[in-house]
Amino acid sequence: MVVAVSAGTAALVSAIFLSIRILRADVKDERIAEISETIRKGAKVFLHRQYKTVTLFTVILFLLLLFTSFSLEKANLGQFDELVPFSFLLGAFFSALSGYIGMNVAVHANSRCTEAAKKEMNAAFLIALEGGLATGLFVAGFGLLGVSLLYFFSKNMNIVVGFGFGTALIALFARVGGGIYTKAADIGADLVGKVEVGIPEDDPRNPAVIADQVGDNVGDVAGMAADIFESYACTLIAALLIGWKIMGEDKAMFPVMIQSLGIFASLIALVFMKKVTRSPFRTINNGVFSAGIFIAIFSAVLTWFMFEGNLSSYFAVLIGLVAIILLALLTQYYTSHKMPPVKEVAKASQTGPATNFLAGMALGLESTAMPVIVICAAMLVAYEFGGLYGIALAAIGFLSVAPLVVAIDAYGPIVDNASGIAEMTGIRGKTRKRLEELDSVGNTTKAICKGFAIGAAALAAISLFAAYIEDTGIIALEVTDPRVVTGAFIGSMLAFIFCSTLLKAVGKGAFTMVEEVRRQFEEIQGLREGEAKPDYERCIDISTKVALKGLLLPGILSISVPLIIGFSLGKEALAGLLLGNVATSFPLALFLAHSGTAWDNAKKFIEAGEFGGKGTEAHKAAVIGDTVGDPFKDTVGPSLDIIMDILGTIALLIAPIIVLL
Amino acid sequence: MVVAVSAGTAALVSAIFLSIRILRADVKDERIAEISETIRKGAKVFLHRQYKTVTLFTVILFLLLLFTSFSLEKANLGQFDELVPFSFLLGAFFSALSGYIGMNVAVHANSRCTEAAKKEMNAAFLIALEGGLATGLFVAGFGLLGVSLLYFFSKNMNIVVGFGFGTALIALFARVGGGIYTKAADIGADLVGKVEVGIPEDDPRNPAVIADQVGDNVGDVAGMAADIFESYACTLIAALLIGWKIMGEDKAMFPVMIQSLGIFASLIALVFMKKVTRSPFRTINNGVFSAGIFIAIFSAVLTWFMFEGNLSSYFAVLIGLVAIILLALLTQYYTSHKMPPVKEVAKASQTGPATNFLAGMALGLESTAMPVIVICAAMLVAYEFGGLYGIALAAIGFLSVAPLVVAIDAYGPIVDNASGIAEMTGIRGKTRKRLEELDSVGNTTKAICKGFAIGAAALAAISLFAAYIEDTGIIALEVTDPRVVTGAFIGSMLAFIFCSTLLKAVGKGAFTMVEEVRRQFEEIQGLREGEAKPDYERCIDISTKVALKGLLLPGILSISVPLIIGFSLGKEALAGLLLGNVATSFPLALFLAHSGTAWDNAKKFIEAGEFGGKGTEAHKAAVIGDTVGDPFKDTVGPSLDIIMDILGTIALLIAPIIVLL
Repeated sequence: MVVAVSAGTAALVSAIFLSIRILRADVKDERIAEISETIRKGAKVFLHRQYKTVTLFTVILFLLLLFTSFSLEKANLGQFDELVPFSFLLGAFFSALSGYIGMNVAVHANSRCTEAAKKEMNAAFLIALEGGLATGLFVAGFGLLGVSLLYFFSKNMNIVVGFGFGTALIALFARVGGGIYTKAADIGADLVGKVEVGIPEDDPRNPAVIADQVGDNVGDVAGMAADIFESYACTLIAALLIGWKIMGEDKAMFPVMIQSLGIFASLIALVFMKKVTRSPFRTINNGVFSAGIFIAIFSAVLTWFMFEGNLSSYFAVLIGLVAIILLALLTQYYTSHKMPPVKEVAKASQTGPATNFLAGMALGLESTAMPVIVICAAMLVAYEFGGLYGIALAAIGFLSVAPLVVAIDAYGPIVDNASGIAEMTGIRGKTRKRLEELDSVGNTTKAICKGFAIGAAALAAISLFAAYIEDTGIIALEVTDPRVVTGAFIGSMLAFIFCSTLLKAVGKGAFTMVEEVRRQFEEIQGLREGEAKPDYERCIDISTKVALKGLLLPGILSISVPLIIGFSLGKEALAGLLLGNVATSFPLALFLAHSGTAWDNAKKFIEAGEFGGKGTEAHKAAVIGDTVGDPFKDTVGPSLDIIMDILGTIALLIAPIIVLL
Repeated sequence: MVVAVSAGTAALVSAIFLSIRILRADVKDERIAEISETIRKGAKVFLHRQYKTVTLFTVILFLLLLFTSFSLEKANLGQFDELVPFSFLLGAFFSALSGYIGMNVAVHANSRCTEAAKKEMNAAFLIALEGGLATGLFVAGFGLLGVSLLYFFSKNMNIVVGFGFGTALIALFARVGGGIYTKAADIGADLVGKVEVGIPEDDPRNPAVIADQVGDNVGDVAGMAADIFESYACTLIAALLIGWKIMGEDKAMFPVMIQSLGIFASLIALVFMKKVTRSPFRTINNGVFSAGIFIAIFSAVLTWFMFEGNLSSYFAVLIGLVAIILLALLTQYYTSHKMPPVKEVAKASQTGPATNFLAGMALGLESTAMPVIVICAAMLVAYEFGGLYGIALAAIGFLSVAPLVVAIDAYGPIVDNASGIAEMTGIRGKTRKRLEELDSVGNTTKAICKGFAIGAAALAAISLFAAYIEDTGIIALEVTDPRVVTGAFIGSMLAFIFCSTLLKAVGKGAFTMVEEVRRQFEEIQGLREGEAKPDYERCIDISTKVALKGLLLPGILSISVPLIIGFSLGKEALAGLLLGNVATSFPLALFLAHSGTAWDNAKKFIEAGEFGGKGTEAHKAAVIGDTVGDPFKDTVGPSLDIIMDILGTIALLIAPIIVLL
């Protein structure tokens, strides 16, 4: 416990320290400061309004949980602790808080990054990276402290699971809301700005440009942070729950120790990344790699002492670490423009949008195979080392590098914004080049982090499934009973419906945005010539409204369906639902993320001069493919992460009630 | 048994009678005869070459099965009957035979239909319908006789299952091969002909036009027939297997009796369809409806006498019949241009191909919900009436109208070909109008039949799963063992890989076809002006080669993966694989079929004058959407039907061996 508290505190203290350092850095250029301020305001407005909706949802669920616990108590079925509603609230609060702070750091870091790039690349790189790491450390710090303190003081897993449900709820809203926001703005800005009016990306004349920049922050920083926070907390909870049942209170702290190691490792990695050697990508790679080595070595030592020389738990953790490396390589293979798959998509663009589209679909569908096999293999091997507990530990190993992954993911929107600010303020020359180099790395790391988030969510879902099985004592599913099969069908179908709802929300949002941007170009005189300023706020408002409206259906579906199935068809049907959902959502999320990124990179490949370059029919087709891919990779794919886990936390939460039915 | 033999014989005799009547009809117009002859030859060439590949595969599997049965016998593990390889061969032969004859009837019926349309609509309608019904009756006749005779004489379910595996293998090849063939030709013909050269569809100057016509026959007649044949045989086998275990030999014949009723019902329905009243669609509807009523009434009587007044088996059958009606209505809702969903897609075409794609995707994804719920509800209610047997009986009820469904499906390509032949021979005026009216009905019935085939395959898969569970005595899946979860993941992923492989094959085929058609237009002088004849054979050859090459990977995957999982991870992992696969494949197939059809109909809706009509940007976007949708609905979606069932038959086949491990 001492380790957990000191690691968690260390994480939070360093995060605060890093944040303060960024805030202290000067922004002398007034135009940079002004644009950054507009982005910041837009992001704040969205987050405040989003949190309002979320608060409403949270309060309703809190009251429902409160009501449930009291009425069960009255009926003398004291299986549902009355503290659950409060731990749920705490989880939601911590998750929202780390997203909020993280985004605030990011929107301050962007202008400092632009400013720093005027002098040298290294300083700009460090600001972006440290800004990202601050978010990562907040996530890990709050996650670790929240789960372990709750566990330590309550010794009641029901309460700890409540915390997990809270984090999953916020993650759902952050991912879905952020995803819809960012893509409605992005597609709207591109379709009118780039295609119809013919102005470059990030041009300040485009009314939707600020909304687009805001979107990067709410989607990739706040959304991603909440996503990983949830996987981080849920794997920890699942591991604690299983460990507690198997080995008793003390030894159960093992996963908490591993995650503490992960926090220290990320701080050490920062030292290795202080200086950009050769390329920013290499530097990041070295940092992550050294963190991995640190964890691999010290967790062996830890296991040795904690389990008196029995290293099987260590091997389970190690398998998780190996799985990340493999997944990262696979993502790179399927999404890098240097590899055959993306080249194939670019080639197919020559015969038009239809063949481009089919090639991208085929790529994404194919790309599901190896990651699924890797996760299955990890699961089977980890099981050999420690049963269900081994599987949960592999997930812990996988997520031990989470703070660093959040860091390099949040790095992306910071440098992207920094580069956008440079474009809008008319900065050219070396500064611009430096920022562009930093930004190009952001695109690669973003794809890898997306793969990480999907893998982490799948592992968390499997861990939650294992914990649910352990907790309900199901042991075996009676498949002769069609309720299990029904559960599996409904679970699988839920993933499809979820996708449909999100695609529709983005489509509607983009449509409204296109109309507004068109209107402004028509009605505001002098806008096209750069003599008048567009009304940025209106576009921000549209994205915000669409995103908040789009939250409702997914939110209601993902909470109500498991409850309905669980209470009407029983605990085994609910197990079927979890299994059916994760078995479909995991490959579906991979497919969407990889297809989307491949279309994006195929477009960039053509823009770099291949197959005729910009302005050709191939390029046009690739742009259309990229537009389709945008919501695939940034809205729908990432949101599927959450649905896998929110179903699991709900199942686990109602497990004590459902076993009594 | 007497009933089964007489029904089966009646089916075959009527089928032969109908076929002869079509062959006897005159084709006076020489040009019609000539074009029809070319299509016929192309279809024959493909089928012969396809059957060569298939024979090779079949012989290899036959030898493998033979080897297995002998070596098991030697090891004194006589669980695997040595007659299995022969029943496998018989199943494959019957399935191939009904596809072959059916297609032959269809390619003879098309010219007769064109000829008849010169005089009146009714005669043309009847020829197409009777041509289709001949195929339907061959399917049902061979299916019913094959399964019930094997069962009756061997009284060994292992042998009967071998028959099912044979039909599934042929179905796989017919669906996959036919699907790739037809879409490579179709996309190739359209992309160059309609888009680049600017000649109408079915224009005789287009070198790929005959390949396209052949494709309709090999895809929609031979492919569909083999698909339904397989579902028909497999549900019958599953119902027999479960019934035999539960109620003993005699009563187990109940499902055979129901299917016999189905055959008589389809013959009676023909009487109701002799005269076109109001519209062809109405007439077909009435026919199907009267057959349904016939089955509903007489199966009640049958059940009453067979089970001494206990009607629960009857209700299970009835649920299957109700499920078809609901599925058909749902398909119509999501794919008809008169309903809001397709209109929404057409509307989204206005902002370009990207929004058209996204809208079509969203529609397809959404459309999975209700059919899944219908099938689950049917399963749960049927289970209440008769346990696992009830579920198998619901599938039997669903498939009892199979002969009629095959009939109205095969009706589609016959009138489509007839209409194409009219276009190529320059027939205009009333004849043309009549054929177009008949053809437009074909599009609607095709979509509904596709929904039927998917539902039937899912129900067959569920029945096979139930039979596998019953046969291996698993009863309960130990979900604490990650092998079950691994199986589910691999099963789900297999559906994605399958899609990817097929999309790639179609893409490659279309690419090659485009190049060939372009070459011919460049090199053959006078082709554009209609003075020279194109080289149809080259295009037929390309489609054939692509289709045969495309068969290999899906064939190998779908046979080897269940074997590998079953023998390396055990019978429970294999159960997980079946469950994971059907839970993903069913909604995935619905999504692909509905999206594809919706894009097609959105295009037709715009062509009818909505949103600016032909030639607008909206129309262009809709054409691109339709091109993407073509392989979705005609290659990938239908092929997923088979993978669900082939996995089940293999599992059931190796069940007696795998339980010994």
